[in-house]
Amino acid sequence: MNEASSSLPHSAVVAPDRRSQWARDGALHDHGRLLMSCQDGPGIVASVTAFLHARGANIVHADQNSTDPEGGKFFQRIVFHLPNLVERLPGLRREFGEEVAGRFGMAFQMSAAEVPKRVALFVSKFDHCLLDLLWRWRRGELPVDIVQVVSNHPDLEKDVAGFDVPYAHIPVTRATKAEAEQRQLELLENRVDLVVLARYMQVLSGDFLRRVEVPAINIHHSFLPAFAGAGPYEQAKKRGVKLVGATAHYVTEDLDEGPIIEQDVARISHRQSVREIARRGADIERVVLARAVEAHCDDRVLLDDNTTIVF
Amino acid sequence: MNEASSSLPHSAVVAPDRRSQWARDGALHDHGRLLMSCQDGPGIVASVTAFLHARGANIVHADQNSTDPEGGKFFQRIVFHLPNLVERLPGLRREFGEEVAGRFGMAFQMSAAEVPKRVALFVSKFDHCLLDLLWRWRRGELPVDIVQVVSNHPDLEKDVAGFDVPYAHIPVTRATKAEAEQRQLELLENRVDLVVLARYMQVLSGDFLRRVEVPAINIHHSFLPAFAGAGPYEQAKKRGVKLVGATAHYVTEDLDEGPIIEQDVARISHRQSVREIARRGADIERVVLARAVEAHCDDRVLLDDNTTIVF
Amino acid sequence: MNEASSSLPHSAVVAPDRRSQWARDGALHDHGRLLMSCQDGPGIVASVTAFLHARGANIVHADQNSTDPEGGKFFQRIVFHLPNLVERLPGLRREFGEEVAGRFGMAFQMSAAEVPKRVALFVSKFDHCLLDLLWRWRRGELPVDIVQVVSNHPDLEKDVAGFDVPYAHIPVTRATKAEAEQRQLELLENRVDLVVLARYMQVLSGDFLRRVEVPAINIHHSFLPAFAGAGPYEQAKKRGVKLVGATAHYVTEDLDEGPIIEQDVARISHRQSVREIARRGADIERVVLARAVEAHCDDRVLLDDNTTIVF
Amino acid sequence: MNEASSSLPHSAVVAPDRRSQWARDGALHDHGRLLMSCQDGPGIVASVTAFLHARGANIVHADQNSTDPEGGKFFQRIVFHLPNLVERLPGLRREFGEEVAGRFGMAFQMSAAEVPKRVALFVSKFDHCLLDLLWRWRRGELPVDIVQVVSNHPDLEKDVAGFDVPYAHIPVTRATKAEAEQRQLELLENRVDLVVLARYMQVLSGDFLRRVEVPAINIHHSFLPAFAGAGPYEQAKKRGVKLVGATAHYVTEDLDEGPIIEQDVARISHRQSVREIARRGADIERVVLARAVEAHCDDRVLLDDNTTIVF
Repeated sequence: MNEASSSLPHSAVVAPDRRSQWARDGALHDHGRLLMSCQDGPGIVASVTAFLHARGANIVHADQNSTDPEGGKFFQRIVFHLPNLVERLPGLRREFGEEVAGRFGMAFQMSAAEVPKRVALFVSKFDHCLLDLLWRWRRGELPVDIVQVVSNHPDLEKDVAGFDVPYAHIPVTRATKAEAEQRQLELLENRVDLVVLARYMQVLSGDFLRRVEVPAINIHHSFLPAFAGAGPYEQAKKRGVKLVGATAHYVTEDLDEGPIIEQDVARISHRQSVREIARRGADIERVVLARAVEAHCDDRVLLDDNTTIVF
Repeated sequence: MNEASSSLPHSAVVAPDRRSQWARDGALHDHGRLLMSCQDGPGIVASVTAFLHARGANIVHADQNSTDPEGGKFFQRIVFHLPNLVERLPGLRREFGEEVAGRFGMAFQMSAAEVPKRVALFVSKFDHCLLDLLWRWRRGELPVDIVQVVSNHPDLEKDVAGFDVPYAHIPVTRATKAEAEQRQLELLENRVDLVVLARYMQVLSGDFLRRVEVPAINIHHSFLPAFAGAGPYEQAKKRGVKLVGATAHYVTEDLDEGPIIEQDVARISHRQSVREIARRGADIERVVLARAVEAHCDDRVLLDDNTTIVF
Repeated sequence: MNEASSSLPHSAVVAPDRRSQWARDGALHDHGRLLMSCQDGPGIVASVTAFLHARGANIVHADQNSTDPEGGKFFQRIVFHLPNLVERLPGLRREFGEEVAGRFGMAFQMSAAEVPKRVALFVSKFDHCLLDLLWRWRRGELPVDIVQVVSNHPDLEKDVAGFDVPYAHIPVTRATKAEAEQRQLELLENRVDLVVLARYMQVLSGDFLRRVEVPAINIHHSFLPAFAGAGPYEQAKKRGVKLVGATAHYVTEDLDEGPIIEQDVARISHRQSVREIARRGADIERVVLARAVEAHCDDRVLLDDNTTIVF
Repeated sequence: MNEASSSLPHSAVVAPDRRSQWARDGALHDHGRLLMSCQDGPGIVASVTAFLHARGANIVHADQNSTDPEGGKFFQRIVFHLPNLVERLPGLRREFGEEVAGRFGMAFQMSAAEVPKRVALFVSKFDHCLLDLLWRWRRGELPVDIVQVVSNHPDLEKDVAGFDVPYAHIPVTRATKAEAEQRQLELLENRVDLVVLARYMQVLSGDFLRRVEVPAINIHHSFLPAFAGAGPYEQAKKRGVKLVGATAHYVTEDLDEGPIIEQDVARISHRQSVREIARRGADIERVVLARAVEAHCDDRVLLDDNTTIVF
């Protein structure tokens, strides 16, 4: 583990020019995002928009979904423009909670688009998802700060070094798993908003998931629920399917059962060996994971029990 | 031309059971749809939602897009629930025009979801797009009443007869084109909300397009702007492309240049003859046209100059 | 059951003009197809091509696959041109068996491309797969003769009548299943080369599958192995997947476990109800089933245990 | 320009472990590939297979296409296994030319699968195609040796250094173009089998293309023939298409008109700015280019006038 760099404060690990490059994209300055869900009923939209209008906010985008106008659930995402948003945000959150959310029994989240989510990438030995996220971040494509890479193997340290991101090698064995997770938790504490498992071949314990206190996104190399568990490409070859896929989902204690954020597939044929199928699949894995991370970090994903609304 | 049936009033040409089957779909009763576009600026969304809330309407879905919050264009589609919508609609339109639209220089359209758009299908000899629309309508999949088929050939009359839709055979030659269009206009007058060119191999004149007073949607058998004009599959084979496509667009006087509503593609290979490519393409044409007709008739398409916003 | 028409000899049930329309497609006259599989080893291709060359046959297409040149399995499909093929076919088959197939322990099948496969369609109440196959056949797109429709419901009889194909209504209940299958077998005996289950909602017994003596292809409305069994679209909605699919497979006694011939998927979102997902899925089902039937009837499918080679 | 490393002999520029990693893939040892095209006629396949069989070669894969068995063109690709192939190859080529190719007026090419094609990558400032090819090569996914990167800008030198490939910075201005091309030609002479333009924003002159004596593959960031020329994503946004694509093609003197090897598309919407469309398109560009390079270097591409046969 790279103790020196992993103990640096958050603001030091991303080069300033990169961050600002991202922040310039799409003119995100002074843009707020509001995610809401509650029991559906009359007056919700009118109350929310009146609240924003009264504070001088201009609604730029809005997405909304109702599972059933009579007794269903209501979900909404609003992007608004408001001068001096970052400094006004704490007050705005408090007032929205008191004046709107409380009245409708609403869960909500309000954030500033210009503040990127801080992300830790977990990886084992396959480099394709890791490098793709690092490349996209460096190009200013992803609304994130990648602040830490964690791996149970040392193999990818040199690749990560080129991106100026600290690489923590924390081996995991059956015997040392609890201790390793403890080290991971200490490393991430107060430093990340999201954990991304970019082909990390260890199962995170329920204890870890509870204590890390931020969401975790995993990429599974099959079109779930087909071929859950180990060796999905071998399973796919054996079953003779004509397409293989990948699934990005939130991690829950039930392995491969968490809410699905994004999926895609690619066509294969009898000509391809398991190894060639895995290569084709890798192209899908990295794109599906990148889309899921982008959607989450753009505050476009809402949970509806074990499924997702992706606006 | 089937004079007898084509002169029947609109309400007689669709079997009641079919119409109600469609209307039951998705619980559309008392659901209104509001489409708006105007210069962007503060307060639009708040005004619209306040207007609806004050009348007891509950917003069920909302989509919104702004090309630029500073001086850009604003587009919105709202689906709302309001008891007794159909009878209240004329008053609601008038009030919305006075209280909201006028203030923001807004173009808008308000309709009742349970009232299907009345559609005329124009066709020449290829049956795939025609039959697909008729099948989908009979199954209750499309929010339309197909009230008339118009063809410059008699070939498909028997197929259409099975759907109880009048079939008007109006031959078109260079010499008789103006007269034929006059007959078409008389046949459709006050009976249709949309004209769909389901592989109609005649160019409609600018005079026809102005006088028909309803939009027309065409399916072009290529991925426009590639292979505009005649023989797109022959052109595709000759150029050696690896995908062929189809494009549904609004008809304008500039052939193949109207606003695009929907497109899709299919993979082809060197093995396929022009005839086989055309067969593969036909599968894309009928699906793309059906999606475009559905989007238009669900009031999900807004024009932005020569492009579309499809919510 | 339509006894009168179902007892007609095969040659009477297809209009001659349709058959010749299909037969003209792709210049199939005097074209033979040879499907082979055996243990791989040296000299197979040379022997097969020498056999054909010695008889004046010209190889037009060839596809070949070897799972492993050392000890793997070898699969090949050859299309050849040979004058007077239909009358020479019985002799050619015998000679090929003696001179080539026996030597390599080869399973093979030799057929004339101009002789379409005779097909029976089984259906319950959903019309989309049935109509799509009938319509493609009428257009001359499918290398088949559809000689019989069998249904456990009377609903689709009128639609089928428009295609001049006999419709046998054979109700199936738990109590009468064995008797119903007996009637089905008698109806099909010596009249069909393939059974297609075009959304037939009954499970065929192992006894039926053995006695019918021709292959059966089924369309399952999910991306197998995901969502096997009943209600796949309900299952898909509940699990929150982002794509739904369809699978065409050979029918075996193990429900939804037979060799997969073709699959495809379509994107869905949280906005769509189960009913809307089913509509979107239906577009995939009909295309996937049509492709599988075409591949089988073009002699392009070979079995490799429980998987398929589709050339 | 890195003179030192660019003057190294070919065998020195690729680390031995990488090359062997690739060569192990798919058990390519002693596998030969034969590409042929000629006027179709009887006896071609039999002669070719007899030639190979007589030398103890075992045919592993074979693909074949005839545009018309009567007077059309014939194309074939054969993969065969033959012990000591690399040393026997020169003799085999000579004998095949004398005994088979001459007789049928055949153009052919025979190569050893284990000898990777030597590739030079040309790039300007966009890194996505360059990095993707370098990374696939390092993973052992591409049957190539990347021996040189050439750029008219210095920006990507550091990224390329991580892959141990020499980076030649050769600026190009209108005034210096001829001289720059001369330097490029000297740098590549006898060192490469293929030039890949991985978003190289300069047009290669006809003189360069003739003198380089190896094929060049370009990636164009549109679905050609739509949006040829400059700014295809801006053109796409303006025209309002619903899909954007990418096209990999052989470079000819007619800009954007060369034979197409591979294409693919991605869906876009009105929500996306030109910059976001370009990002989405970049994902397609890198995959389409990688597939085209792989197909070419696997000897799977044959030219048929201005189109390609990709086996």
